[in-house]
Amino acid sequence: MSSNPNRVFNFSAGPAMLPESVLKTAAAEMLDWHGSGMSVMEMSHRGKEFISIYEQTVADLRELLAVPANYKITFLQGGGLGENAIVPMNMLRGKSSIDMVVTGEWSKKSAEEAKKFATVNLAASSENTGFTSIPDRASWRLNQDAAYVHLCMNETIGGVEFQSVPDVGAVPLVGDVSSTILSRPLDISKFGLVFGGAQKNIGPAGLTIVIVRDDLIGQATQYTPDVFNYAVQSKSDSMYNTPPTYAIYIAGLVFQWLKARGGVAAMEAQNIAKANLLYGALDASEFYVTKVAKDCRSRMNVPFFLRDEALNAAFLKGADERHLLQLKGHRVVGGMRASIYNAMPIEGVQALVGYLQDFEKANG
Amino acid sequence: MSSNPNRVFNFSAGPAMLPESVLKTAAAEMLDWHGSGMSVMEMSHRGKEFISIYEQTVADLRELLAVPANYKITFLQGGGLGENAIVPMNMLRGKSSIDMVVTGEWSKKSAEEAKKFATVNLAASSENTGFTSIPDRASWRLNQDAAYVHLCMNETIGGVEFQSVPDVGAVPLVGDVSSTILSRPLDISKFGLVFGGAQKNIGPAGLTIVIVRDDLIGQATQYTPDVFNYAVQSKSDSMYNTPPTYAIYIAGLVFQWLKARGGVAAMEAQNIAKANLLYGALDASEFYVTKVAKDCRSRMNVPFFLRDEALNAAFLKGADERHLLQLKGHRVVGGMRASIYNAMPIEGVQALVGYLQDFEKANG
Repeated sequence: MSSNPNRVFNFSAGPAMLPESVLKTAAAEMLDWHGSGMSVMEMSHRGKEFISIYEQTVADLRELLAVPANYKITFLQGGGLGENAIVPMNMLRGKSSIDMVVTGEWSKKSAEEAKKFATVNLAASSENTGFTSIPDRASWRLNQDAAYVHLCMNETIGGVEFQSVPDVGAVPLVGDVSSTILSRPLDISKFGLVFGGAQKNIGPAGLTIVIVRDDLIGQATQYTPDVFNYAVQSKSDSMYNTPPTYAIYIAGLVFQWLKARGGVAAMEAQNIAKANLLYGALDASEFYVTKVAKDCRSRMNVPFFLRDEALNAAFLKGADERHLLQLKGHRVVGGMRASIYNAMPIEGVQALVGYLQDFEKANG
Repeated sequence: MSSNPNRVFNFSAGPAMLPESVLKTAAAEMLDWHGSGMSVMEMSHRGKEFISIYEQTVADLRELLAVPANYKITFLQGGGLGENAIVPMNMLRGKSSIDMVVTGEWSKKSAEEAKKFATVNLAASSENTGFTSIPDRASWRLNQDAAYVHLCMNETIGGVEFQSVPDVGAVPLVGDVSSTILSRPLDISKFGLVFGGAQKNIGPAGLTIVIVRDDLIGQATQYTPDVFNYAVQSKSDSMYNTPPTYAIYIAGLVFQWLKARGGVAAMEAQNIAKANLLYGALDASEFYVTKVAKDCRSRMNVPFFLRDEALNAAFLKGADERHLLQLKGHRVVGGMRASIYNAMPIEGVQALVGYLQDFEKANG
């Protein structure tokens, strides 16, 4: 448990909780990183101190995700929404169309943005279910001449998550992994490219991670800004421009924390336990409602509703009083949402479940 | 002086030194910002805590720079090099050409990148002097039908700085102010747009500040990514996507530090004193050489050379031993460079001048 009596459980969908030990290290090293006499924020990105941080961070991520040798890891800026444009700029490779699998608000936005650059084929969509399901793979209408197939492995707003990586054949698969990365094993070799903003399972906002297979790099359209050209950035180790150095340092501390806790497999076990605890409590009650199909429930983002929505304000007020924060659902979905990323300790989920039960007793 | 006996003077061109008091505040607030029980890094960008930080930061920047009411301040990502593409995407406004004033490596890169999007007219260049001067305003070949005139107010690599904002008539002026912003008063009303990466005079890398006049917003080309569309971002207070929240917080602490020290006018007086001290010592010696014309010497970045370049390695080694770091010049220019941004205390420049004199005595 936390040594900080004031510390809250923050169920925000992102930016989100960070491991307390990471924050303590960051605080302790703020004025003097490893005897350098400098904060990491002050370091030249080309100096030996920061280069050592950068190289360790990339190596740890490669190890944690078992990234194959023929994939480049780049640290960019602009977030997941930025990649919605940057991916097509880089990945069209002379082709003119993209297959999109739309399972929620994020993949829907990806499809809208991609239309600026290519013909977008809606290969599958679960919008007719209110984004509470994932269309059966057999129903997807894929095109062999598409530049790539895009999907979002976990939809933060709707709370649906692919439980495995679907096979899409020879066309490269692009995965938005912003809110699932490092929460469970992910077979990178099944993708041509994965991308994610760091502010959910990794670190501070302002860092975007892109992992891309070598052979797909180097055919960016002529309008691609140099700083967002994967060829330019992978050749310069993400330092064609000044990278978000402090965010990379914090991500590195998170990677070390993950390794010390047993890596992604251990994290998955913990995340399964947390998700089972929360979904179990919601399923056991008539007072609360969940809408997402059980076979695609997200382990990271758990939307739920009070059957009597007139109690919403009282529920949120009581949660705040117990230091259970940011439980209000996204405006598109309404209701409540608990985001329980890697850094949310099981004690936080236990506290939430306790509150769910107490609130039901008092108001049921 | 610093209370940290290990603290160094870091003459890096960026990322660069931050005020020690800012780092102390950041360390103290790392686990619990103002009793919120959260680190700023963990806060939802849409929560009341971060919104209060964001609004104060924007208001303080507006006050410090006296930004007129008809200019929008946005906090984006991608750095100055990113803006080299993002500015033309947003600012062409149906026109097809840009006038570029090239006074160093940064404006040269801006011109190269802009060629992806428009016809680039080289309105003026000082490349024939090795970028040690600024072409006389009377010699500039400006076009009345250009979308805008681009210049870099301070060239970090070559060390030349505009001492005032040139008049370019009715065509909007775009200024890259990355390495001069907040170091001296700047009349924003003379520009259509200014932009800068934060990692020199403001804060951590990964934050880009764009200040743009209202009437120039809203005519982005169709290929502009939403996250880099000034209309989209200014309408959503830079929160169309998740902004680099922690970098904004640190920038806000720097703005408060600047205000407490008397604002930009007081900072300019300090920067003049620092620059005069350093240039004076270099000018007084035959051992050291400077190349930039005196009327456009940068107050922020001071390139200099040892007349006997065989002594370069010994000079840098001795400097490191005195905790005077990152004095090696940029590879394009060679020699040495001292970057003395706002956060470099005069004691750092005094220590450097002392070292310059001692090294000359020992080796002259």
